[in-house]
Amino acid sequence: MRHLIRIDELIRDEMTRLFDLAADMETLREMGSDLCKGRILFYEPSPRTRLSFESAMIRLGGSVLGFSDPQSTSFVKHETLADTVHMVCNYADIIVIRHPHAGAAQLAAQHSPVPVVNAGDDSHQHPTQTLTDLYTLRKTRGDISSLTVGVCGDLRYGRAAHSLAYGLATFGAKIVLIAPDGLTMPDEIVWRLNHLYGATVETVASPMDAIAELDVLYVNRLQKERLPQELDPAAVVEIAKQYRIDAETMRHARPDCLIMHPLPRVDEIARELDDDPRAIFFEQSSNGVPVRMALMAMLLNRVDRPPLTEKSPDLTTHADPICHNPVCITQHEPRVAPLSHRVAPDHQVCLYCQLPY
Amino acid sequence: MRHLIRIDELIRDEMTRLFDLAADMETLREMGSDLCKGRILFYEPSPRTRLSFESAMIRLGGSVLGFSDPQSTSFVKHETLADTVHMVCNYADIIVIRHPHAGAAQLAAQHSPVPVVNAGDDSHQHPTQTLTDLYTLRKTRGDISSLTVGVCGDLRYGRAAHSLAYGLATFGAKIVLIAPDGLTMPDEIVWRLNHLYGATVETVASPMDAIAELDVLYVNRLQKERLPQELDPAAVVEIAKQYRIDAETMRHARPDCLIMHPLPRVDEIARELDDDPRAIFFEQSSNGVPVRMALMAMLLNRVDRPPLTEKSPDLTTHADPICHNPVCITQHEPRVAPLSHRVAPDHQVCLYCQLPY
Amino acid sequence: MRHLIRIDELIRDEMTRLFDLAADMETLREMGSDLCKGRILFYEPSPRTRLSFESAMIRLGGSVLGFSDPQSTSFVKHETLADTVHMVCNYADIIVIRHPHAGAAQLAAQHSPVPVVNAGDDSHQHPTQTLTDLYTLRKTRGDISSLTVGVCGDLRYGRAAHSLAYGLATFGAKIVLIAPDGLTMPDEIVWRLNHLYGATVETVASPMDAIAELDVLYVNRLQKERLPQELDPAAVVEIAKQYRIDAETMRHARPDCLIMHPLPRVDEIARELDDDPRAIFFEQSSNGVPVRMALMAMLLNRVDRPPLTEKSPDLTTHADPICHNPVCITQHEPRVAPLSHRVAPDHQVCLYCQLPY
Repeated sequence: MRHLIRIDELIRDEMTRLFDLAADMETLREMGSDLCKGRILFYEPSPRTRLSFESAMIRLGGSVLGFSDPQSTSFVKHETLADTVHMVCNYADIIVIRHPHAGAAQLAAQHSPVPVVNAGDDSHQHPTQTLTDLYTLRKTRGDISSLTVGVCGDLRYGRAAHSLAYGLATFGAKIVLIAPDGLTMPDEIVWRLNHLYGATVETVASPMDAIAELDVLYVNRLQKERLPQELDPAAVVEIAKQYRIDAETMRHARPDCLIMHPLPRVDEIARELDDDPRAIFFEQSSNGVPVRMALMAMLLNRVDRPPLTEKSPDLTTHADPICHNPVCITQHEPRVAPLSHRVAPDHQVCLYCQLPY
Repeated sequence: MRHLIRIDELIRDEMTRLFDLAADMETLREMGSDLCKGRILFYEPSPRTRLSFESAMIRLGGSVLGFSDPQSTSFVKHETLADTVHMVCNYADIIVIRHPHAGAAQLAAQHSPVPVVNAGDDSHQHPTQTLTDLYTLRKTRGDISSLTVGVCGDLRYGRAAHSLAYGLATFGAKIVLIAPDGLTMPDEIVWRLNHLYGATVETVASPMDAIAELDVLYVNRLQKERLPQELDPAAVVEIAKQYRIDAETMRHARPDCLIMHPLPRVDEIARELDDDPRAIFFEQSSNGVPVRMALMAMLLNRVDRPPLTEKSPDLTTHADPICHNPVCITQHEPRVAPLSHRVAPDHQVCLYCQLPY
Repeated sequence: MRHLIRIDELIRDEMTRLFDLAADMETLREMGSDLCKGRILFYEPSPRTRLSFESAMIRLGGSVLGFSDPQSTSFVKHETLADTVHMVCNYADIIVIRHPHAGAAQLAAQHSPVPVVNAGDDSHQHPTQTLTDLYTLRKTRGDISSLTVGVCGDLRYGRAAHSLAYGLATFGAKIVLIAPDGLTMPDEIVWRLNHLYGATVETVASPMDAIAELDVLYVNRLQKERLPQELDPAAVVEIAKQYRIDAETMRHARPDCLIMHPLPRVDEIARELDDDPRAIFFEQSSNGVPVRMALMAMLLNRVDRPPLTEKSPDLTTHADPICHNPVCITQHEPRVAPLSHRVAPDHQVCLYCQLPY
């Protein structure tokens, strides 16, 4: 594999290799290194993930160029993403991309001779967040497979939650989905967790219904900017409030139940919990650096380890556009090759946004 | 001391040590160095001060990450500064922060395991500007204590003027405050200059009242963006105009009276003075680089010199919020510890904005 | 020469030397180098050219500071460009500037002790784009002088087209100007091509009138943002559409007729041509890196080659402002020295925007 677009492209053994390397990177993080000297990272803006990638690349001895302003998303109005990628691959050795349309990183990868890393494509996926989350679990608990993990909050639009669910399933953890009506995990993802991973998935309506059995409570922010217009934002916020985690909630949790969050948080987690030793979201955020160091060093073939292998997805080319997902990149970019991706014998999805069409 | 939040945290001997190091840095500035190789600077935006810090860190062999866009002040709407600091300290070895609320750098320092440098917190202070100003005076005149310095313009909202007054008092210079009604130096600062420093402070209404006796005329820009809404901006600008320095003003000044300005200037200094050899504001601006190199190398313990010592301010913890200053960070950030700072036996102020409450 | 403001400041021999160096830089581009270690590049924003300069400087071992946000053009409202340059030259070893006013780079150079490179000043010139274009032609075709080059599209406001015309004339190529009414090459440039270069210039109304004889078709984007308000944008766009190059156009071209474009493109070139091997605009874009590496290394005197020589233009100082070009920097900056530039015995122009006054 040359790119990292979706977490479900990685098998368990590959993730484990990556985590072993990340553990080694914790040393280099302090000492600095020349591992990727001269290598350049380019990225589309993404406020916080960007800083983590930037810090990782600098610790590897590389340099960073690109955009630090979240507003300057596109180079020029009406320029296609394909054109942008054809151009920036001349300047960078690896491209980290965040984009407001699902499947954009996939499209970028098709046009790029250098590795592309998906740093979040609308509500689709955010695989490096998941690698960070799983690395944090492994570092803190040793074994992921025996854990029961509650994934709570906006599971419909939260890309970190989507990637996390696949990542947990990859390691065989038990998954408890906790979301208000209207913000539950998309059917497609639940279907895959069940049919492709054989995962143990439980669904409950409120944090209190599951809190006592959890090893980890993973809280997600409400993705207000992605709520469809037909939803009444005030109503959704009202519901989301019922999912706020506070000291009272945690009084019912196990004494070692970890509280995680992909950050930034708004008020999903009451600040009174900041002093709770179970709250490890700042440590989690810190782990993003060695994990991203490991990933980039591996994608750039700068370490003496077996590389991530290139997968051969079962693709079908179509004559006409197939996807009708309004946030899919195929709805916004001209001349995208209409490709479907067979994820199971009877189950085909759009290659880009990974939704059935 | 691990941080630099206020200029009045430094004693004279520490400033002198810093200036000696800055003089050495002038050589490294040309040659480059590996003094802070691998160290990373993070900062909140601040257009010009940022470039100076950025240049200083690169000359030290370090790298810079952060924001170059003055608009992207906050990561995410409603995220607290404390959360932001908890996160960015994972990515940086030193944090340089500019912020629209007084006391923000102080708050950041409380949450940061890495050194925090205040690059301007609303109208409170701007200590590295003052170090640059004093270094320039020492370099140009040798001795600061014998100088009479006129500080002119918007002294009420000008943070550079506030820090400068303390800095001059530290070295025993004579201070002449020159400001229009409504823009005079805050009472608190004048009180401290008199009672804590025993400074010689004179106040005059117009530049012409003092120009003949000055060794230095330090001009400050009108801080239009900080004027309270009850002031009529047009009226204030009108008054400020009377404080414009031009060739006619300088005809009454000593032949060696230096003209200084923290830059950028608008029209406080007539452009006809650009060719006056007494105008040294561009040289002053240039001195910011070795001074900031020295400060960062010292805070990061990369030089073989006695470090800046950590002060132990006399603090009192309160049960409830104490400060009512509308621009104080305590008015804008949840869960700030209400702390007061005793600066003299009978004189307590808010730890953050340093104003009486 | 210390700066590069206009392509017509370079003689043929200098361009050739630069291209020889650029060819050597192609190796360093892959390997990295320490040629300009410690040197710093500062630039005003310019989305794509910026990335190319940034990549070039990093490959030379240098660092980059400045603005990555196209919005933050000026430091502070009302600060003069002269003040900005006086300040940033303290922080950078070379200044790359893009600016919305013609002649801004020339003005910057007058105030700068470090080399200034013009990365585009309104519709005036963009000399490094031209060096990239010519290097691409030399690399692809070996000899430039024997080529017939069609320059097509918005030739009135396209700065890349202006610089290119002079560059082609310098090498003796045949130039075919192809532009709609209202967007034709400015008279001043045509006059110079004829009288100063003795160039062979042909003018045609439509791509189809010349396509069969071209070795190169160089397409320019419509500069919508620079169209004067009296033009009806809709009408102009309509006309521009007739200049769109597609597979049908190229069916009439020679089998080896190159298609070039300074990028980004909107729809001047139909996407169906992306697979046409004659379309070399992405390769052209890639060549910007070694060319800019060569230019900066030469301007910074870091290579053991004869430097670019400083020209002595024939200047006249005037008592009063002379230029009436509304986009000329002299209309927007106070206290610009009114200078005229004699380009031929009877032909004087404004030094800044290079238009007759």
